Amino acid sequence: MSYITLPNPSLPGISGLLNYNKTTAQPLLNLAEVFLRGESTLSSGERELIAAHVSYLNNCHFCHTSHAAAAVAHLNCDISVMDDIKKNFVETPISPKLRALLDIAGKVQKGGKQVLPEDIAIAREAGASDRELHDTVLISAAFCMFNRYVDGLGTWAPQEASAYLDRGPRIRDEGYANFDPIAYIKG
Amino acid sequence: MSYITLPNPSLPGISGLLNYNKTTAQPLLNLAEVFLRGESTLSSGERELIAAHVSYLNNCHFCHTSHAAAAVAHLNCDISVMDDIKKNFVETPISPKLRALLDIAGKVQKGGKQVLPEDIAIAREAGASDRELHDTVLISAAFCMFNRYVDGLGTWAPQEASAYLDRGPRIRDEGYANFDPIAYIKG
Repeated sequence: MSYITLPNPSLPGISGLLNYNKTTAQPLLNLAEVFLRGESTLSSGERELIAAHVSYLNNCHFCHTSHAAAAVAHLNCDISVMDDIKKNFVETPISPKLRALLDIAGKVQKGGKQVLPEDIAIAREAGASDRELHDTVLISAAFCMFNRYVDGLGTWAPQEASAYLDRGPRIRDEGYANFDPIAYIKG
Repeated sequence: MSYITLPNPSLPGISGLLNYNKTTAQPLLNLAEVFLRGESTLSSGERELIAAHVSYLNNCHFCHTSHAAAAVAHLNCDISVMDDIKKNFVETPISPKLRALLDIAGKVQKGGKQVLPEDIAIAREAGASDRELHDTVLISAAFCMFNRYVDGLGTWAPQEASAYLDRGPRIRDEGYANFDPIAYIKG
């Protein structure tokens, strides 16, 4: 039960909020489209993993599971990744560069000033470029926004991962800019 | 000295980052335009106060001082407000509704799940509408993004308030959507 009256209370997480106010929804959707699917040397799958990682650290079940499902779809990997994100990637084979970028994303989640020159140095040593450092910080920061929007207004979210899994390929294929909250729930 | 090489290192805070990558900059500017200056029953001055309050809580000097200067310009109030924000508004006369909304913004800054039904009830009692609750949570969440972007990439910021004050009226009059980082620094 969200803290404000939504036109369609059955829409979970951010989808109910995006359906509440179209004027504020579109800039959020455009931002997700550019940050997660726009031009970058990080793949959309890698960027969705960063989004899911930060959302888990922020304890936002809806965003964690939605973006983990998108990462699974993009990377065509096993759904066990969804749970492995919660364990900070102990089983998933990820590159040293992505490992370092995920660590920076985790620092950003705690606060911007938590990122130290040595964190940047480790990522550079692993091959991260300026643009990849930029995009990692920006995506992590953006999910500190999305997560707070979703939870700060008390939205509900399905608990079971199966409710999110089939959304992953749709996010991968259709993107965010033209996201239709009603169609999302209809499947 | 920012953590990444910027084309114009003299541009402070977010202005240097907005000048670094135009593709990621525009969605951020469009979002600030809608959230802080778009249609709402909260005035732009009130919304800039929320932005400055959250930025102070996030220890982001550039964003706190920039948005405090914008609030001063919008509200046509004394510049002492800039410092009073740091004291959680002990001297500035603010309405009970704005007080309750600022308190909710402070909860959102800590984390979305920190906002409790009783916080919402206090704000409603003081006259806050659904839309005002929505906008408060969203603006606070958005500044948890902006602040982390600015500090997570190690940007520099002038320390003295005087460096920000004359930007306030320009933000009020010209807005964010067409923000030109180079013109910003030229004054």
